[in-house]
Amino acid sequence: MGELNMGELNFIEDILEKTGDYVRSNYANRRLLPVNSKAHANDFLTEVDIKVQKQLVAEIQQTFPGDSILAEESGLNAYPDKIPDRCWAIDPIDGTQNFLRGLFPAFGISLALIERGIIVAGGILMPVQGDIFLSALGKGALKNNRPIRVTETADLALARVDVDFDGPANREEIIKRSRKLLVKAGQIRSNACSVVGFCGVASGEQEAYMVLGINTWDIAAGVILVTEAGGTVTRFDGSPVNPFDSRKDALISNGVIHHVCLEEIQLPEPAVLREPPLR
Amino acid sequence: MGELNMGELNFIEDILEKTGDYVRSNYANRRLLPVNSKAHANDFLTEVDIKVQKQLVAEIQQTFPGDSILAEESGLNAYPDKIPDRCWAIDPIDGTQNFLRGLFPAFGISLALIERGIIVAGGILMPVQGDIFLSALGKGALKNNRPIRVTETADLALARVDVDFDGPANREEIIKRSRKLLVKAGQIRSNACSVVGFCGVASGEQEAYMVLGINTWDIAAGVILVTEAGGTVTRFDGSPVNPFDSRKDALISNGVIHHVCLEEIQLPEPAVLREPPLR
Repeated sequence: MGELNMGELNFIEDILEKTGDYVRSNYANRRLLPVNSKAHANDFLTEVDIKVQKQLVAEIQQTFPGDSILAEESGLNAYPDKIPDRCWAIDPIDGTQNFLRGLFPAFGISLALIERGIIVAGGILMPVQGDIFLSALGKGALKNNRPIRVTETADLALARVDVDFDGPANREEIIKRSRKLLVKAGQIRSNACSVVGFCGVASGEQEAYMVLGINTWDIAAGVILVTEAGGTVTRFDGSPVNPFDSRKDALISNGVIHHVCLEEIQLPEPAVLREPPLR
Repeated sequence: MGELNMGELNFIEDILEKTGDYVRSNYANRRLLPVNSKAHANDFLTEVDIKVQKQLVAEIQQTFPGDSILAEESGLNAYPDKIPDRCWAIDPIDGTQNFLRGLFPAFGISLALIERGIIVAGGILMPVQGDIFLSALGKGALKNNRPIRVTETADLALARVDVDFDGPANREEIIKRSRKLLVKAGQIRSNACSVVGFCGVASGEQEAYMVLGINTWDIAAGVILVTEAGGTVTRFDGSPVNPFDSRKDALISNGVIHHVCLEEIQLPEPAVLREPPLR
């Protein structure tokens, strides 16, 4: 683990790595997988999502029996009424559609520990690339055990920005919000996967990422990774991310470009109806 | 070469494969590369583009000394006044920005032979993945010597569409053109690389790709690959692609979804000023 050294982070690393072979071999044979769709025709669920979640849940329950778990797939995805003391946030496959369709292996497994609302440790495994991203509060961010850092690019015209168009329900809103960024950024990419968005910013491969459909389980490990790598994560209005609130928007950046991006994604003030002037 | 068997196609395969090691090792060491920018701050040129082009040009001139060559980088990028008998179209690195920034190796080397305006053979190498895509007129399309075919998805709500936001000069126009597709498609990806767009459609990993800044050298090998894999390539108005004309727009699809996509990218008719009614 290099410089970072705490029990939970080692645990995260170990259990993520354990899922690697299973996920890789299913990705290689993805054409054979049975698929269900969840909320809409493009919201896919595979047995890989379910099995990885079960495996991670079992490991957590065995090692830390008192801890809460919040996870993407059924049974564990209800937000808690009160903030738990210790809560593990699991996204077994973030980017299931990319997993199924290939082109690039733009998906990952995301796991984080949140203590009384504060994200204290997180890990993301990209199993096909064999890359593991780890971070712990105040201890920095690592990719494959080497420190990573965001870029210092402050000029939007030189920035690579990843816009997540997400599912159809959020499309109109994300197009409206991203309109000016889409025009002004140096390069636009859309990888349609939040762990790719976070890891790309944290490791300096892109300057910013914006997304409108993100939940506790796909934001927690990413937030600590990016902030420990020197970057910034906020909601679209600039407020900090509370991983348990019901908002689903996030702007992720290298930090120095954050205020510029924030400005570009604000919607114009609604026109105010004025009283007719007094005669 | 499997089913396809013609001298020029074998030649394409051989000389593309020869560039592989050089490009891979430079990708791995991309942080050390000196970079120039061409038309604008995000239009990059590296010594890799130049060296690959030189190598392919030298091989072509040696084996087919009478043939014309059209290539992306300086000296060979002027469109011919009259359509040449035989013309090789070279894009040494299609996706130079992706090459430089990483995240995924979304770039490739593109080479095609155009005889009297007809694309007769083409090859695309994705050197990091080790994937080679080959096709010849009437002979089908191969990925790593196995036949590939487009998908049969006809429903836009289930389709994965790759929208290329290209450089800043084309942004407003591509946003206008893609607006309805961005809203209606099942998933939006933006890989910012035309060979990825073409290969993704040809091998069934996405249903459509649209781009507004494409030239002979980055369209020729892709067009024959997609059409030989059962798909369709047209301009935005539905007209066929003449690889030597000066238009830079292209809609690429699996064929069955083509007319739906074409409809969605048409701009609304401009409002017509009516004559005031006769009194």
